[in-house]
Amino acid sequence: MPNPKGTNKSSGLDRRRKAAQNKDNANYAERRAQILASAAEVFAEEGYDATTLNDIAARAGTDRASVYYYASSKEELFQQVCSGMLAANLAAAEEIAEGDLSAADKLEQIMANHLKTHEQGYPQWTVLVRELRRVTDARTDWSREEVERMRRYEAVVRSILEDGMNDGSLRRDIDPDVATHAIFGMLNWTHRWYRPDGPYDAATIAREFAAIALSGLTVRDAG
Amino acid sequence: MPNPKGTNKSSGLDRRRKAAQNKDNANYAERRAQILASAAEVFAEEGYDATTLNDIAARAGTDRASVYYYASSKEELFQQVCSGMLAANLAAAEEIAEGDLSAADKLEQIMANHLKTHEQGYPQWTVLVRELRRVTDARTDWSREEVERMRRYEAVVRSILEDGMNDGSLRRDIDPDVATHAIFGMLNWTHRWYRPDGPYDAATIAREFAAIALSGLTVRDAG
Repeated sequence: MPNPKGTNKSSGLDRRRKAAQNKDNANYAERRAQILASAAEVFAEEGYDATTLNDIAARAGTDRASVYYYASSKEELFQQVCSGMLAANLAAAEEIAEGDLSAADKLEQIMANHLKTHEQGYPQWTVLVRELRRVTDARTDWSREEVERMRRYEAVVRSILEDGMNDGSLRRDIDPDVATHAIFGMLNWTHRWYRPDGPYDAATIAREFAAIALSGLTVRDAG
Repeated sequence: MPNPKGTNKSSGLDRRRKAAQNKDNANYAERRAQILASAAEVFAEEGYDATTLNDIAARAGTDRASVYYYASSKEELFQQVCSGMLAANLAAAEEIAEGDLSAADKLEQIMANHLKTHEQGYPQWTVLVRELRRVTDARTDWSREEVERMRRYEAVVRSILEDGMNDGSLRRDIDPDVATHAIFGMLNWTHRWYRPDGPYDAATIAREFAAIALSGLTVRDAG
């Protein structure tokens, strides 16, 4: 593919970056992980549009030219920050769905896994949710794959809800689409308020969210 | 206040805009409402950062110079698009909170009002929620007032939850902060999926969200 800018310097850098990424180079991989972590922090604090490669370089304690040795653009850094989390959530949800638990227990496990991703992948998960429109704008192959993962992830949850409605364990007077949106709303709105150093850990939030969504806030009359 | 650009043209325009805004001019008000509606559409579709005044002018069928006759900047247009909705939601919530309903019924009414705001104020409400970080960045007096309204709005919901826990109608094993976040998560995540021409109207969504949050998805055993 021709280099659009036509500079040997840039294509030389592209070559060196690709060679370094492909080589089994522990120092390179470690430094790249540091730069991705810095990118995630700045994206989470400033938003994608307001972030510059200079901001990321400064956070990582290096300069813009050095960042180019690890990623070719802000967009590539963003994709690398966001990649993998939806795939992991989808895989976990599919495995939970195939198990023998009740519909309610499957939903609770998926909610717990989702919030664990947020806790362990902080602030990357915050960036993914906050910039979800960019992740899912379908302008790149990467985005189209992420859209498809999200669609399948939501479909797993909807399917569990429908199973529970069909086997009589879940209410049938609530539309499964609306219930799916309600569950993902609770889960994803955490990007606005959840902090790893806040008062609630992911397991506590998941347990209480599941209690609300499955059993409701009102006191159930004694059976 | 001195004009930072020091051009007579700009300060003359500022003067003319302020004079027109203050005069009781139906044509001006109508045209301004059209430009705000165009701004809301473009902000909702493209996001604030990616939107230019040229985009808004093009959507409104005019040019950038004419837009300046209605607002001094993209930021002012954004504030005007977002203004008023949080204040209205807060006022409605405070009135509901002061009534004689049960805690559960108060929460259901607040949820219904919130989603009605989204339906009637579409796409302005979508812009407000999607750009909430910008609305609440506390860099302007307007933002600081919006932050305070949001804080009070959330406090009204939390207070109703606490009242219900204290009078025995709501469960006490769920933290009222977590429950508040769960409710606002369901309500605000609609910015990702709700469309006025979609399959569900705001009243249906509100009824089903309230059923989920208050009674839960699982079938309650017969009492």
